[in-house]
Amino acid sequence: MIRVGILGATGTVGQRFVQLLERHRDFVVSALAASDRSEGRPYVEACVWRLPGESPETVRGLVVRPCEPPLDCDVVFSSLPSAIARDVEGRFAAAGYPVISNSSSFRMDADVPLVIPEVNPEHLALIERQRSKGKGGYIVTNPNCSAVMVVLALAPLHRRFGVTSVVVTTMQALSGAGYPGVPSLDATDNVIPYIAEEEEKIERETKKLLGGYADGAVQPAALAVSAQCHRVNVTDGHLGAFRVKLARRATLAELREAWTGFRGLPQELGLPSAPAQPIVVRDEADRPQPRLDRDAGNGMSVSVGRIASDPVLDWRFVALSHNTIRGAAGAAILNAELLLAQGRLLRPARAVERAPARG
Amino acid sequence: MIRVGILGATGTVGQRFVQLLERHRDFVVSALAASDRSEGRPYVEACVWRLPGESPETVRGLVVRPCEPPLDCDVVFSSLPSAIARDVEGRFAAAGYPVISNSSSFRMDADVPLVIPEVNPEHLALIERQRSKGKGGYIVTNPNCSAVMVVLALAPLHRRFGVTSVVVTTMQALSGAGYPGVPSLDATDNVIPYIAEEEEKIERETKKLLGGYADGAVQPAALAVSAQCHRVNVTDGHLGAFRVKLARRATLAELREAWTGFRGLPQELGLPSAPAQPIVVRDEADRPQPRLDRDAGNGMSVSVGRIASDPVLDWRFVALSHNTIRGAAGAAILNAELLLAQGRLLRPARAVERAPARG
Amino acid sequence: MIRVGILGATGTVGQRFVQLLERHRDFVVSALAASDRSEGRPYVEACVWRLPGESPETVRGLVVRPCEPPLDCDVVFSSLPSAIARDVEGRFAAAGYPVISNSSSFRMDADVPLVIPEVNPEHLALIERQRSKGKGGYIVTNPNCSAVMVVLALAPLHRRFGVTSVVVTTMQALSGAGYPGVPSLDATDNVIPYIAEEEEKIERETKKLLGGYADGAVQPAALAVSAQCHRVNVTDGHLGAFRVKLARRATLAELREAWTGFRGLPQELGLPSAPAQPIVVRDEADRPQPRLDRDAGNGMSVSVGRIASDPVLDWRFVALSHNTIRGAAGAAILNAELLLAQGRLLRPARAVERAPARG
Amino acid sequence: MIRVGILGATGTVGQRFVQLLERHRDFVVSALAASDRSEGRPYVEACVWRLPGESPETVRGLVVRPCEPPLDCDVVFSSLPSAIARDVEGRFAAAGYPVISNSSSFRMDADVPLVIPEVNPEHLALIERQRSKGKGGYIVTNPNCSAVMVVLALAPLHRRFGVTSVVVTTMQALSGAGYPGVPSLDATDNVIPYIAEEEEKIERETKKLLGGYADGAVQPAALAVSAQCHRVNVTDGHLGAFRVKLARRATLAELREAWTGFRGLPQELGLPSAPAQPIVVRDEADRPQPRLDRDAGNGMSVSVGRIASDPVLDWRFVALSHNTIRGAAGAAILNAELLLAQGRLLRPARAVERAPARG
Repeated sequence: MIRVGILGATGTVGQRFVQLLERHRDFVVSALAASDRSEGRPYVEACVWRLPGESPETVRGLVVRPCEPPLDCDVVFSSLPSAIARDVEGRFAAAGYPVISNSSSFRMDADVPLVIPEVNPEHLALIERQRSKGKGGYIVTNPNCSAVMVVLALAPLHRRFGVTSVVVTTMQALSGAGYPGVPSLDATDNVIPYIAEEEEKIERETKKLLGGYADGAVQPAALAVSAQCHRVNVTDGHLGAFRVKLARRATLAELREAWTGFRGLPQELGLPSAPAQPIVVRDEADRPQPRLDRDAGNGMSVSVGRIASDPVLDWRFVALSHNTIRGAAGAAILNAELLLAQGRLLRPARAVERAPARG
Repeated sequence: MIRVGILGATGTVGQRFVQLLERHRDFVVSALAASDRSEGRPYVEACVWRLPGESPETVRGLVVRPCEPPLDCDVVFSSLPSAIARDVEGRFAAAGYPVISNSSSFRMDADVPLVIPEVNPEHLALIERQRSKGKGGYIVTNPNCSAVMVVLALAPLHRRFGVTSVVVTTMQALSGAGYPGVPSLDATDNVIPYIAEEEEKIERETKKLLGGYADGAVQPAALAVSAQCHRVNVTDGHLGAFRVKLARRATLAELREAWTGFRGLPQELGLPSAPAQPIVVRDEADRPQPRLDRDAGNGMSVSVGRIASDPVLDWRFVALSHNTIRGAAGAAILNAELLLAQGRLLRPARAVERAPARG
Repeated sequence: MIRVGILGATGTVGQRFVQLLERHRDFVVSALAASDRSEGRPYVEACVWRLPGESPETVRGLVVRPCEPPLDCDVVFSSLPSAIARDVEGRFAAAGYPVISNSSSFRMDADVPLVIPEVNPEHLALIERQRSKGKGGYIVTNPNCSAVMVVLALAPLHRRFGVTSVVVTTMQALSGAGYPGVPSLDATDNVIPYIAEEEEKIERETKKLLGGYADGAVQPAALAVSAQCHRVNVTDGHLGAFRVKLARRATLAELREAWTGFRGLPQELGLPSAPAQPIVVRDEADRPQPRLDRDAGNGMSVSVGRIASDPVLDWRFVALSHNTIRGAAGAAILNAELLLAQGRLLRPARAVERAPARG
Repeated sequence: MIRVGILGATGTVGQRFVQLLERHRDFVVSALAASDRSEGRPYVEACVWRLPGESPETVRGLVVRPCEPPLDCDVVFSSLPSAIARDVEGRFAAAGYPVISNSSSFRMDADVPLVIPEVNPEHLALIERQRSKGKGGYIVTNPNCSAVMVVLALAPLHRRFGVTSVVVTTMQALSGAGYPGVPSLDATDNVIPYIAEEEEKIERETKKLLGGYADGAVQPAALAVSAQCHRVNVTDGHLGAFRVKLARRATLAELREAWTGFRGLPQELGLPSAPAQPIVVRDEADRPQPRLDRDAGNGMSVSVGRIASDPVLDWRFVALSHNTIRGAAGAAILNAELLLAQGRLLRPARAVERAPARG
């Protein structure tokens, strides 16, 4: 079993990491790290568990450590706030740890892969550029919670028909803002047409994710991306309304088939968190809906529906994915599973270097 | 005072008519009509009042009549369901009544004006084509609750710069579906990416509303319209996220000025329900919001915000309006106020024809 | 495997039956029955599935039958609306079927057991009074969705200390009203202080459930019950705020122990749907909460918290349970599991009588 | 006009003060004070206005001052957080200002009146005990937002029949927690059965408010009070479910009449914010409801409904009031209006003492 440390373990995404890793085939949580005020206390005391049910028995007694190396683990998963992630993750990578990060800090760095395993696994080769510089540690990132949904929905079309423009309008869940996050007085009987930096993230991450890898670098995709983002009164599940312009003609049946037939490396390798069906097409007139469809594929599938031709661009449709599973913790875990399958996660030297745990 | 009859008086929009006319300068409610099961009972008993507070004292004792002429009034306001509106409204018009309708049945008829008084008051000339055929009655319609918001937001841009394409994604309030309307299990913790026929209505009504009037006919505007509609968990207030392509270049300052300087005939004539400012531009990063902005201009102003250039079309912004005031009852009342100011509402012959009220 | 028919299979509770029986150890769904408009169509077409995810593969092709005997099954589970349940369930019982009913129609009949397996399994003896009259069929009922929560929370106290008075104020979930149920305009930004007949049901069912069984009859418990019921904007999970007066003195520690130590026949027999812990006591200041605790024990445990002494009665606390699992479908299934374990569900004569299925 | 200073002017209740005083007959806002980070900036910049619409023109340019005397006004209204209220309000009173406070800090002090003008105006005599000690300044408090609703609902019964016990279960609005207040992830699809110190406040404030005044002191009422408090997903409007035990027998008609006939000094004196009807009795089966009834009497009336006899105590009913109007800012303003009418608000010496405004 690979021993996992979680940075930001008491936060919303940190708790999802803990939950999703509870009975994982290959990973076991061996270290939890969080901010100063949690430090030194058992996880069950340091963390107000905000997911339904109880925190897993196996982690309750783990004493929360500070977010700094060394940490008693083989790999770290990070859901640190971006304000501190750059510094902390950088130090873990420098200390030789693979850092599987859900934070935004490094996503756009030229040397850092920003990866959805079904979409652009070849970008992981960037790791070698990082590794060559230090002790073998590196950083791999997954996209912003909305960008995952956008890119998974677009990738099958982009592969087959070429997407030249995309116009996406999101309706995003409250959990995307963490805890305490959005005040209830803003959420109830309301929509907020603003999420800080979200539109920019979707626009730039989409281009990197759909970009090509050549000569040791990612070349951003040439498509034009327009995103408008809204916070709606939904606990989990980001919805996007899309219009796309395609380079090549397609019929509705071909679009549908591009989505339903879409598979990637995770499905091929049978990775533990890989959904059998990355994209689920729903044919009902009123689906996908967050409450009904966010858990498709255990929260790892994107649901697509309401496909129709569009009077302004070529096609329109709606897509939905679970923002804290496929859009955050699940995304990072799938990245780690792929790295493990590729033999890139194990570092023989780790055991030797490992310092005694603080207490 | 003009004596008003309300068709569909016990429904959601009917109640808004009653509320908004409570202390109107020119109109007084003299007759209320609704479906069979309400007929013959005082309004206070026939109607479960679902707006905050109480129904107005002045209408509580009015006995609800059947939805058929004659009705003891000078003009009828209709919010009948479309299934019966075509038949019933047609019979009132044929019997000589001006019919100010919020229903969708006649909106696209070539002889029937579909009007927002600030936008296309000249379309009211179509009335003469109707009047010439019968006893002087006619039908005037206001748009679908979302189309009002779309067209009011676009009109100032269309006048100044020409809108060639619009892509709008709506997040619509629950009250737009009437009562009982959307089941709470569909609304809570959810978004529904479907409203029956709404996208089609926005697409076709926008073209008629922005169309030119010449030689006794409306020529639809040439712009391309793409609408995706969603129901969100908000009581009142429809929000739209827009991208537009313009025929002429504009700066952000010019757009802003086109909106803030926009005035129409209602403002010129000082109509009682006309907002001083038809379009309110909000400069905060996170506005407009349904709960905070739906009541702007007593529910008759459209609020616009988040104006920015767009990577796919030219510009993007967000707009909001109150769907049961500017989007329904208030829209019809403003139409009637304009007709009254133009001398088109009074029919001297009415008093003579008027049949004794049934009881 | 016992073959189960479901009456009212397309409704909210009917769908929960289907979902909970999907991989049941002892039961398999062999027949689905619903109202006329569903009749004759495959379940997947007749039923708009409103639970997250998809309807189980195994039932999708079953053709929906009318709600009348014969039905191709060994036992029927009923979630029929009370308006028709009395007639239909009566006919199934008369035709020899065990009827495990979630409907209210027969709950208060002297011959019909109203049972929570952990609380009053001895009441099942009433079955014999029914069986002796006919072909061996009978009706067993579970309580109203709130009454289950009330009685499970009270039972451990009643056993140990005697409850002489209970004052309960409920905050009930939307799913308790079925579908379409509560209109969203009533639910959003609102509380409705009224649920038709709910207070009466809680008051009378509690007395029967806590009553003694002797000489072939149930003697209602002597406690005074006051219930006030409210609908709140929650999808699933009924919450109750309780004050109780006890016949014997108790300490807070004794109350706590009465709840945590509470076990019943289902736990003893290891019935498949029996939660290990029927009552979960939560010690956090702000629990139980519907969203976090409704799924405790797979929706079959009641969570209790905020235990404190009370200035008017003796004690107060808050309790929560899942209203469509422990409060409806799960309650009926647990009743059936107990009957099966007691050898009361099998009817050797069934196979012989079974008529050919219509269709 | 009396010149009013507002302490905590940028908070939720501070904004209500500003809104309710916008066109007040007797009061004009002349000074706004808030915490350090707002200090020195015009109100329109320092304050994110969170009520629908815009902040009043008249206060937008006022420069926000620190919360310390002197302040350019005749009286201060305070909605400071309790953590700092005791110190700051004390200093204003010591400096000679009448302090009309919505904070909890001084409510239970023996010398400080805790007043609902319709209920216990005679308690205002306590002011003289404060005034005699200093420069003529004093503190008058209004109750906790829930306690106002509880006591207004009880007072008419207590006067006529004597209330010996009350059991109240509240369902309280989000705005009661201020801003940012309750995180939306806690509010959506949920109920929180806990509000810090709320149950204690209701229990003790109710006794003081219903207590008698004699010999310069308030004698707490002898009734037993049990409160259980819950936060529900409602923006404004606290609902309470009550059971009461009365000292004297009453019929339902007598109860109803006690409420509908209830009037107090504010109604007698025609105070500007006094509702014509302090208690509105609703006879519909499903009222009062927060969304429909919170604005009764401009948010100053309490609505009562669902009156019925109770099997455990004598009677039960439901009551509702607007928590930030009658329960906070409106309560304080009504107190000030009564003090003004009684000649207790004006202090001739004020003009002389008044220090030059800082800037």
